[in-house]
Amino acid sequence: MTITVLSSPTKEVRIGPDLPFVIIGERINPTGRRKLAAEMAAGDFSRVVSDALAQVAAGAHMLDVNAGIPMADEPAILAEAIKLVQSITDVPLAIDSSIVAALEKGLAVYQGKPLVNSVTGEEERLEAVLPLIKKYGAAVIGISNDETGISEDPEVRLAVARKIIERAQDHGIPREDVLIDPLVMPIGAMRYAGRQVYEIVRRCRDELKVNTCCGASNVSFGLPNRGPLSATFLAMAIGAGLTSAITNPIEPEIKRAIMAADVMNGNDENCLTWIVANREPKPEGEEAGGGRRERRVRRG
Amino acid sequence: MTITVLSSPTKEVRIGPDLPFVIIGERINPTGRRKLAAEMAAGDFSRVVSDALAQVAAGAHMLDVNAGIPMADEPAILAEAIKLVQSITDVPLAIDSSIVAALEKGLAVYQGKPLVNSVTGEEERLEAVLPLIKKYGAAVIGISNDETGISEDPEVRLAVARKIIERAQDHGIPREDVLIDPLVMPIGAMRYAGRQVYEIVRRCRDELKVNTCCGASNVSFGLPNRGPLSATFLAMAIGAGLTSAITNPIEPEIKRAIMAADVMNGNDENCLTWIVANREPKPEGEEAGGGRRERRVRRG
Repeated sequence: MTITVLSSPTKEVRIGPDLPFVIIGERINPTGRRKLAAEMAAGDFSRVVSDALAQVAAGAHMLDVNAGIPMADEPAILAEAIKLVQSITDVPLAIDSSIVAALEKGLAVYQGKPLVNSVTGEEERLEAVLPLIKKYGAAVIGISNDETGISEDPEVRLAVARKIIERAQDHGIPREDVLIDPLVMPIGAMRYAGRQVYEIVRRCRDELKVNTCCGASNVSFGLPNRGPLSATFLAMAIGAGLTSAITNPIEPEIKRAIMAADVMNGNDENCLTWIVANREPKPEGEEAGGGRRERRVRRG
Repeated sequence: MTITVLSSPTKEVRIGPDLPFVIIGERINPTGRRKLAAEMAAGDFSRVVSDALAQVAAGAHMLDVNAGIPMADEPAILAEAIKLVQSITDVPLAIDSSIVAALEKGLAVYQGKPLVNSVTGEEERLEAVLPLIKKYGAAVIGISNDETGISEDPEVRLAVARKIIERAQDHGIPREDVLIDPLVMPIGAMRYAGRQVYEIVRRCRDELKVNTCCGASNVSFGLPNRGPLSATFLAMAIGAGLTSAITNPIEPEIKRAIMAADVMNGNDENCLTWIVANREPKPEGEEAGGGRRERRVRRG
């Protein structure tokens, strides 16, 4: 079994096909959140703090941190946000940027072993990002598209995934430190987007022997009542072998579907997390985030 | 694509991997329902009528009818129930009994092409039930266990499935008229019961080219808050290729998960059933059962 280990100074998170699913909180991201973007650009991180705490309280095992604000000093803001979030929570982080200089700045200030979000199969990106992953001993999300775009053929997307894994190995990054993102497209626009993901995820597990991570919200874009759609998509992807996702644990339907999917995959040992969370008379939707995956690690 | 066609005198239901999922209502079954059992034994079918109507209103595409009451005249009661249900609804039925004489009596009174629930891989059952399926032109659910019991090895359960399909063909019953039931065990007792089902279902679709049907409630037996567990299990099984299930559409979580899974499998064309059911201001859980699969058929 391939296990990816991420860490903060005091906590370790393990990702793998026979372990409980790992939730990476998606909320600290100014894309499409104008208020948050303006605040972060002005040096006000109060909403970053409250988003971090709320997601961890809702069961996030890790947090994604993105500072993609047009015209702002993204590297500096990202580094600031990472330092701040690490000072108030103990979960490992995903450092999220499309700007290499921002990734480097984030990696430099991060304490522990982070996940880097992300690299694609494009030559230029691979050669810019992978040396940083190696230098800082991080893990990376590899998105299965390249210069030719996003193929609708799972075969092509798997070939890109294979290329990313091999190139990472050339740079001295082991297979377990590459998580493949199968690329989730909106199902309203691409009818078989779900089936493509299930196939890619299953073959990543069975053939490429790597863990997987995806953004789960995109799939229901443009459709009404998105909560149960994204929740059901995640359950189906977990059934196919998905091991982690960048998603919103504050949505009770999503959190519940992930917990139920862990039970249905045999990854909630003795169904204990489910049983504890659903014990009477606790009302639905208020489950604590089963923390069995996280264990304290001693640091020297 | 393998398509199984069932019918009543006025309605046809088609089951297949690229079609919306087929819900077979489970409620008309006295097993574990003492009141219903006593009423049916005494010739009072009022609850059968209300259960039939409520399930169809909630979106059942077919109804399972079972009259398994200890010490009662099961063949007569089953035939009576089938005639009654056919007189008040137009959905095709699954004739459900472990007694061959009851299946025969039910088949004799049924109008249209029913589903017979069920035959196992046991020699004696195969040779008793398959001739009836052929004689009445029905379809049948083949449960993947035999004289040796229920194996935990998907390989063995697939071998039993293969045997049932081949034996059916020997009797002149085509592959599309055999639905394989992968046998869903309680996950609280058997940790990997879910994964076994996903693998069997996927290989039934890809290798054996048959449709599948399962009872979905058993999986959450003994656990708290069973609704979301069964719903999530169904979504994961549909992702793996499950084409129909005997379940309870009156549970809003189950109905919603099935509708969402149809979207996520690309089997809700243009997401139309989902969009109509979730149009504002209709409250959640009151979706009408998307009837796109069912089309009127002319009978001579």
